[in-house]
Amino acid sequence: MTYCVGLCLDRGVVFMSDTRTNAGLDNISTFRKMHRWQIPGERAMVLLTAGNLATTQSVVSLLEERTKAHDERDPTILSVPSMFQAARLVATTLRDVIETHSSTGQRADSFKATMIFGGQIKGGPPRLFLIYPEGNFIEASTETPFFQIGETKYGRPILLRAYDPAMSFADAMKLLLVSFDSTIKANLSVGMPLDVCFYDSNSLKLDPVRRIEADDPYFLTISDGWGDALKSAFDSLPNPQI
Amino acid sequence: MTYCVGLCLDRGVVFMSDTRTNAGLDNISTFRKMHRWQIPGERAMVLLTAGNLATTQSVVSLLEERTKAHDERDPTILSVPSMFQAARLVATTLRDVIETHSSTGQRADSFKATMIFGGQIKGGPPRLFLIYPEGNFIEASTETPFFQIGETKYGRPILLRAYDPAMSFADAMKLLLVSFDSTIKANLSVGMPLDVCFYDSNSLKLDPVRRIEADDPYFLTISDGWGDALKSAFDSLPNPQI
Repeated sequence: MTYCVGLCLDRGVVFMSDTRTNAGLDNISTFRKMHRWQIPGERAMVLLTAGNLATTQSVVSLLEERTKAHDERDPTILSVPSMFQAARLVATTLRDVIETHSSTGQRADSFKATMIFGGQIKGGPPRLFLIYPEGNFIEASTETPFFQIGETKYGRPILLRAYDPAMSFADAMKLLLVSFDSTIKANLSVGMPLDVCFYDSNSLKLDPVRRIEADDPYFLTISDGWGDALKSAFDSLPNPQI
Repeated sequence: MTYCVGLCLDRGVVFMSDTRTNAGLDNISTFRKMHRWQIPGERAMVLLTAGNLATTQSVVSLLEERTKAHDERDPTILSVPSMFQAARLVATTLRDVIETHSSTGQRADSFKATMIFGGQIKGGPPRLFLIYPEGNFIEASTETPFFQIGETKYGRPILLRAYDPAMSFADAMKLLLVSFDSTIKANLSVGMPLDVCFYDSNSLKLDPVRRIEADDPYFLTISDGWGDALKSAFDSLPNPQI
């Protein structure tokens, strides 16, 4: 499995992904699931991937290759004029890769992948999309301001309860760490280290990805502290009459 | 879907179940998923069911009918000498019902059901079992002191963090309400009202089921209070350096 979240805030977009991939319980590896493209001052884009690793790596490689073949006539992710066009490019590439693999007659389900894609291109606002394996996608809105992919359930209640569009990047990172920690504690197929990336609205550039290792002191503070904080929260509620 | 939990405590066993059943999003009903048998002073047993409603109702009816056909030679849930034997009886009944329906050649998956079964029979300790559709089962232990069936993921993190075998029945009810509330908020197929039942170790009798309606004042206190308590817990954690 995998766990990735893209979160829209008033001040920008935050992305977090785990790095565990597995083909069975006895075959686990660490792979980056956060991919980025930018032309500072013009565009900045982040892609989070969940699902079949061969599919997602193939999609990323195809998108990468196109950006380097300058003479090719196809649009590339570095040349399309809007985030909507960029999302469409990622989505069609994803659908094509899945179709290519599925058409060999193998079981099609196993080639599937889902992606979160967000960022900003000059002239437009920051946008965040959830891209389905069928090649269609939806966009985040004020009513649904974040997307999760992979093992989404364990970490969802805290996102629903504590998310606030006005929160700072620091608060958002704390929120995501709590959500990821709950997921990691419950599902072996989601694992450390984590990658996190903040996109400041209208900055049109990406800061380096911050990698959070399992022994990161702040992560450990959150992981331990959240258990105690939850217990205090729980104790603060009144007891029922039985 | 469904959400049911059986929780072993030092002082007994607590059972909670929701009541929503659905065949598609446009066909929802309310059904009891908590079933009980007792001979006060000799045995007290509770069964929670998740999965195909026709299967679970059939299992419960078969178990019921046997207890009433006194002359029948088969063992009944009111005559077996131990909780292990009782669990085996429930499990074989479950497997037989699924097999009967599956052998018609219909899609077998849809007939499946999973159950939590617990209680006490005089001469033995209180025990709690998780029964699989295949007719086998596992027993709770000090390392795994509770079982969940149905939509288990949203409500699991709080159980993992706040469960304590020494907790009172009141605390256990509060814990389960928080876990159920998180699940109900995230999954339409789990719904109010809830049924809760406490079994006091060595009492060998069951108190009436307590039904918690959607407008139950204590449930509303927990549901509203938990959001605020979570936010305070979240705020109490230190912020990261970004």
